[in-house]
Amino acid sequence: MDITILSIFPRMFQALNESLIGKAQEKGLVNIDVVDFRDYTTNKQHHVDDTTYGGGAGMLLQAQPIYDAMNYVETKKPGRKRVVLLDPAGKTFNTKMARDFAKEDQLVFICGHYEGFDERVKDLVTDEVSIGDYILTGGELPTMSMIDATLRFVPGVLGNSFSAEEESFSNGLLEYPQYTKPADFRGKKVPEVLTSGDHEKIRLWRLTQALKKTLERRPDLLETAKLTDEEEKLLRKIRQNI
Amino acid sequence: MDITILSIFPRMFQALNESLIGKAQEKGLVNIDVVDFRDYTTNKQHHVDDTTYGGGAGMLLQAQPIYDAMNYVETKKPGRKRVVLLDPAGKTFNTKMARDFAKEDQLVFICGHYEGFDERVKDLVTDEVSIGDYILTGGELPTMSMIDATLRFVPGVLGNSFSAEEESFSNGLLEYPQYTKPADFRGKKVPEVLTSGDHEKIRLWRLTQALKKTLERRPDLLETAKLTDEEEKLLRKIRQNI
Repeated sequence: MDITILSIFPRMFQALNESLIGKAQEKGLVNIDVVDFRDYTTNKQHHVDDTTYGGGAGMLLQAQPIYDAMNYVETKKPGRKRVVLLDPAGKTFNTKMARDFAKEDQLVFICGHYEGFDERVKDLVTDEVSIGDYILTGGELPTMSMIDATLRFVPGVLGNSFSAEEESFSNGLLEYPQYTKPADFRGKKVPEVLTSGDHEKIRLWRLTQALKKTLERRPDLLETAKLTDEEEKLLRKIRQNI
Repeated sequence: MDITILSIFPRMFQALNESLIGKAQEKGLVNIDVVDFRDYTTNKQHHVDDTTYGGGAGMLLQAQPIYDAMNYVETKKPGRKRVVLLDPAGKTFNTKMARDFAKEDQLVFICGHYEGFDERVKDLVTDEVSIGDYILTGGELPTMSMIDATLRFVPGVLGNSFSAEEESFSNGLLEYPQYTKPADFRGKKVPEVLTSGDHEKIRLWRLTQALKKTLERRPDLLETAKLTDEEEKLLRKIRQNI
């Protein structure tokens, strides 16, 4: 997979060299380039922003440097691209979108800053994406989050011992509580069933906990989750006990 | 405001020295410390994780290093703290939460990694927060996003020319399209009204655009938005024209 990030804060992407994304790059599973679109300004001062037509506080990113940076990317890396723009009015990013992005050969992320973009930048993009109902100063941090979430679905990135499909949301449920050593930590004990060695009992306990937690905290997820007959039956039992 | 981050990837936080958060630190509006909880392990190998009770792929972060790192933070910085743990099962982060966090004197963010935490870590936290319905490798990237969103509501951070209250979501609506120079960019023109100089016309156009966009893309926001009489009237008109 090839990823290009358009940003005027290239140094923020240092974080991509660490942890999972760093390792994915080392393994050659992904190539990430950051293009500073300030390099594509045509004015002497290298300004990338200007005032808003119709008035209003704050500055907007101009179309020109971003258009010309995209032209450069197109020349260097021809072919079909998913071009993602962070926008609070976009479709909310989720696991399904991460899985879709993971199937692409080329992803481009355009990172905004200041009060936003000139609307005409949107003609360059295939996906307007929101990272959630909150406002950030720039697209850099959420872009890194989206890259992390996406790479987890690229084969080889997580290694063999584990699959992204096993986690929260992947089966439509929140995750059950998990414990590691010691069994008694400063008086706080691990639930007995988990040290019983009875695999069937453990499986049922976990499934029940996952269903309970989802029902309590995110009942909306249960409406779209594809539950098995067993899960439906357990859920009915949980509901009766409330 | 004082922020402490508990993480085993302290180098990822380089991004906090840039842009808005970097400036807020320079201005002395926020102090940010990163505590590597690997330094608090009691085993020779400095392992922070171990296998899961009851079986399952992947490793969990142990309680001990995090408890002891928190003890250290408590000693260095006594007083009331909001302790935030990233968890997909937590309450979804949004603008309201950012505004609440901005009122605190002390925020602590505990960043997970690997398959998650030992459940007993949750006894240390005041807020379990989800950044959205997707899975990340660690809490570092979303923690930086939350800090950014929060600091925007800390007085002085954004400067005088602009207030975080003016943006998307702050009035419950998505933002209207915005344009900057030039008026004609490679044949793509700015809507005429914005160059008309008629402030009342511009105001009405923007309000209508914001309502239209919200109705089309996020009708759920209209259910909770506190609309003025004028907005209600405009919205009825938009609905009739669809």
